[in-house]
Amino acid sequence: MKITPLQQARLQYQPKLPGMLRNGIKQISVLEGEATCSVADQAKIKELFPNTYGKKEITFVKGENTSEAKKQVVGVILSGGQAPGGHNVVCGLYDALKATNKENVLLGFKGGPSGLLNDDYLEFDDEYIDQFRNTGGFDIIGSGRTKLETEQQFEVAAQVCKKHGVTAIVIIGGDDSNTNAAVLAEYFAAKNTGVQVIGCPKTIDGDLKNDDIECSFGFDTATKTYSELIGNIERDANSAKKYWHFIKVMGRSASHVALECALQTQPNICLVSEEVAEKKMSLSSIANYIADSVCARAERGLNFGVAIIPEGVVEFVPEFKTLISEINELLAGSKADEFNKLDSWTEKYSFIENGLSKASMDVFALLPQSIQQQLFFERDPHGNVQVSLIESEKLFSALVKNELDKRKEAGTYKGKFTAQHHFFGYEGRCAFPSNFDADYCYSLGYNAFMLIQYGYTGYLSKVSNLSQPAQQWVAGGMPITKMMNIERRHGEDKPVIRKALVELDGAPFKYFQAHRDIWAVETAFTYPGAIQYYGPTEVCDLTTRTLALEKGKMTMQD
Amino acid sequence: MKITPLQQARLQYQPKLPGMLRNGIKQISVLEGEATCSVADQAKIKELFPNTYGKKEITFVKGENTSEAKKQVVGVILSGGQAPGGHNVVCGLYDALKATNKENVLLGFKGGPSGLLNDDYLEFDDEYIDQFRNTGGFDIIGSGRTKLETEQQFEVAAQVCKKHGVTAIVIIGGDDSNTNAAVLAEYFAAKNTGVQVIGCPKTIDGDLKNDDIECSFGFDTATKTYSELIGNIERDANSAKKYWHFIKVMGRSASHVALECALQTQPNICLVSEEVAEKKMSLSSIANYIADSVCARAERGLNFGVAIIPEGVVEFVPEFKTLISEINELLAGSKADEFNKLDSWTEKYSFIENGLSKASMDVFALLPQSIQQQLFFERDPHGNVQVSLIESEKLFSALVKNELDKRKEAGTYKGKFTAQHHFFGYEGRCAFPSNFDADYCYSLGYNAFMLIQYGYTGYLSKVSNLSQPAQQWVAGGMPITKMMNIERRHGEDKPVIRKALVELDGAPFKYFQAHRDIWAVETAFTYPGAIQYYGPTEVCDLTTRTLALEKGKMTMQD
Repeated sequence: MKITPLQQARLQYQPKLPGMLRNGIKQISVLEGEATCSVADQAKIKELFPNTYGKKEITFVKGENTSEAKKQVVGVILSGGQAPGGHNVVCGLYDALKATNKENVLLGFKGGPSGLLNDDYLEFDDEYIDQFRNTGGFDIIGSGRTKLETEQQFEVAAQVCKKHGVTAIVIIGGDDSNTNAAVLAEYFAAKNTGVQVIGCPKTIDGDLKNDDIECSFGFDTATKTYSELIGNIERDANSAKKYWHFIKVMGRSASHVALECALQTQPNICLVSEEVAEKKMSLSSIANYIADSVCARAERGLNFGVAIIPEGVVEFVPEFKTLISEINELLAGSKADEFNKLDSWTEKYSFIENGLSKASMDVFALLPQSIQQQLFFERDPHGNVQVSLIESEKLFSALVKNELDKRKEAGTYKGKFTAQHHFFGYEGRCAFPSNFDADYCYSLGYNAFMLIQYGYTGYLSKVSNLSQPAQQWVAGGMPITKMMNIERRHGEDKPVIRKALVELDGAPFKYFQAHRDIWAVETAFTYPGAIQYYGPTEVCDLTTRTLALEKGKMTMQD
Repeated sequence: MKITPLQQARLQYQPKLPGMLRNGIKQISVLEGEATCSVADQAKIKELFPNTYGKKEITFVKGENTSEAKKQVVGVILSGGQAPGGHNVVCGLYDALKATNKENVLLGFKGGPSGLLNDDYLEFDDEYIDQFRNTGGFDIIGSGRTKLETEQQFEVAAQVCKKHGVTAIVIIGGDDSNTNAAVLAEYFAAKNTGVQVIGCPKTIDGDLKNDDIECSFGFDTATKTYSELIGNIERDANSAKKYWHFIKVMGRSASHVALECALQTQPNICLVSEEVAEKKMSLSSIANYIADSVCARAERGLNFGVAIIPEGVVEFVPEFKTLISEINELLAGSKADEFNKLDSWTEKYSFIENGLSKASMDVFALLPQSIQQQLFFERDPHGNVQVSLIESEKLFSALVKNELDKRKEAGTYKGKFTAQHHFFGYEGRCAFPSNFDADYCYSLGYNAFMLIQYGYTGYLSKVSNLSQPAQQWVAGGMPITKMMNIERRHGEDKPVIRKALVELDGAPFKYFQAHRDIWAVETAFTYPGAIQYYGPTEVCDLTTRTLALEKGKMTMQD
């Protein structure tokens, strides 16, 4: 078998463009808006981006295309983790580029930003690109995590661009990659290379979001895929009535993915890292919170449930962060050798007990042994604890179990508790993009080319009004510097795109907050099922609930 | 939110019946076939089932309905693990029952067979049942694992049936549950209770399959759900190009699920337990087999891949089975206390070394420490090793890593190997049934009622010709005794439905065998995507490849 029936069918799908881009290339003109300034630290950002700061927001409107007729050679790069729809960004870019001028060339730099530095690329043609329309994955050219950020890298990039006559680079990436795109744009402008740089907002994490970018692509498909699975598990839990399922979902820092999945599936529990940090919750208080739900349900004879855990939550627990930094300190340099020489876990445990503060030792003592050992045995090349490897779904179910044992002894809990564990991440990053992501991504790519064609640089491709049907979407561009502020990173002040965490006073969290007490006790599960690409529009063109709530398309009463 | 848009839409779906059942209840007549005999051990089975053995196969055809007009009170039971489509069996049963006579009653015994014993039931009406049409899960009445097999249970069941005037029981279950259905049918017949018993073939494992039953329901949807996820992970692997994913899929004994997923997704590796047993493979030889693929791909610069591991595979490795029985022996009775008293793992390890045979100790020494410890620390109430808890996906990736380390030292391997692990089971058991399962299950239930109405007992509802469009399906019934033989179970000879393992000379395995050497080296991944309920028929009415190959709808060249 070469390709599956669904893939064959999806190759035929024609993604929907915003209405204003549907009149043909010759009928796309620019409406310039106000000059922009950065969201904070204006003076510093302006100083760092003398050539690209303060540019105007632009919108495309129907009207005569007045862009300069010149041959474009565009290079495109996929940066960082996969997100559904990446292929469609490339397809949209390619289609606009070829529709403008058949002589235009699109190069794909392979394996991420390193492809540009290593001059490793392919040239797209119809036959090649047609295999990837509306498919998931980044395998069209591969992706990679090399960061484009040093002057030396920029020089190499400039040389490679010069060699191929590249007129513009499109970087498809998250907040960091687009920050770097802005810096590269500034460098190219300062050096008069004539090479423009345009970014496209990608990440399933949903944390590249602000006044201008309503959502990053991939978030829609990934959360729908996870929600499909969570819903299936909920239905299984409610049929077998004997397990509590602890489900970790991807998202190292922000909890948008967990929250969106909760809005789609109405589980008994969903932790939100930002709330954990805000309330300075301890591991025990989190375990208590979950145990309260387990007990309340057990009272009703419901010895089953579902809890969603955001991947990075432990890093938001203040006492746990302190513990980790003490462990890193305790094993720094030669002290690790001393620790490693100790023969038994009992001896090692004494060493740990002597080395940690009382407060941290109390936290450490709470952890199941497997996680205690993981903290000490699996360290990164710098000797640091690998927090990302911690199986937090197992950690919390173990802590809940301990708490329930105590309550059982005290006579306040009489139920049964058996846990199952899941982690969903890789399952959703390369799904066939939903119609929303297929349309949005194609539009982002198409639009990115129009920004190039009109000579803009340091802009993010912007498609907005996304909670409405695609016909009403608004296409344009926004200077990346407008989204920047100065943050402390690795001991240095850096200009960066502000990462969007879940806002505790935002509509999605407020909705969750208003309903979660009921969900914790009752079985209010909802079952989204698999993403549908065909069928009733209310099924196959649904946006995320996060977007619907943020844009007022869904209310607290829904 | 009450229910999701997909659920709302699916409630409207009208499942397709076999053509011969589409003419209205009044136009369904019976065509009797030959008298049957059991597949083996005829004399013994006949002796055990004097009242229900040797009955004729029957087929429904268009013609005048000559069944007796009497009020039916039918009780339905969901038995064992969830499988997508269970609700539709109940809906089909209900619709045929009500279409025959509005006064007929359908009772649902709650929480599995124990619902019958405890007289815990609900009575279905339109409003209640309409909420469950074409949905996943068994939550309509719940399921359970109580086995109906003792004389005492049968007596209680007879009393409960008498109390409610029950005329027939429909048991929806796997091979064991249907074996028990046959025994119950015989009991009811022998005691002249007038209560008929009809079975329906359910199990995602796909191991209830024989000359009469082309497949059990739920296998189609579950394998499509797992294949969606495996395909997504393959695409991720092929995009990031840095991980080997070890994916365990449900299925304790037979490997039908793993094999079907492999046929749908063309991974680099898929273990088949039946082959492991047949070839008496050792853990090392399996690890070597996988490592050969890793090395061959690394030679081509492909340091990534996907391996599918059937849940129960370790139990098919002869040396591992021996190890487990030695461990059970080593910890029997008071010896466990002796072991538990030992302080450190080092001391425990010596104890183990002294207690195991040389051969088993060699196997034990191969295992990663976490699995070694699991074998000794997590035991069931009888003190036995819990083989089902073994994370075999992690076991094999660890063994492969060891083998690769050796090859690296020997200079025969220069690649990189980093593994990710997954287990898919609960994700697929309660998915919205595919159109195939929705149609098949509805037909099974509808047909089950027709068997009842015509007075049959001890029959399995049989719908065949499933690789053709539903219009051409054939509806009828087969005596369960026809599928039985005598097997040794827990030290006793028992009449049971023969469990279907993967046949190594069957078309599905043959196809896999013919292609796997290429798949092991090349990246031949295919991406099935999410189950589609709407859209092109080649997408949304696809059967499993197992069925297509078995029925000659797919050939070795496809």
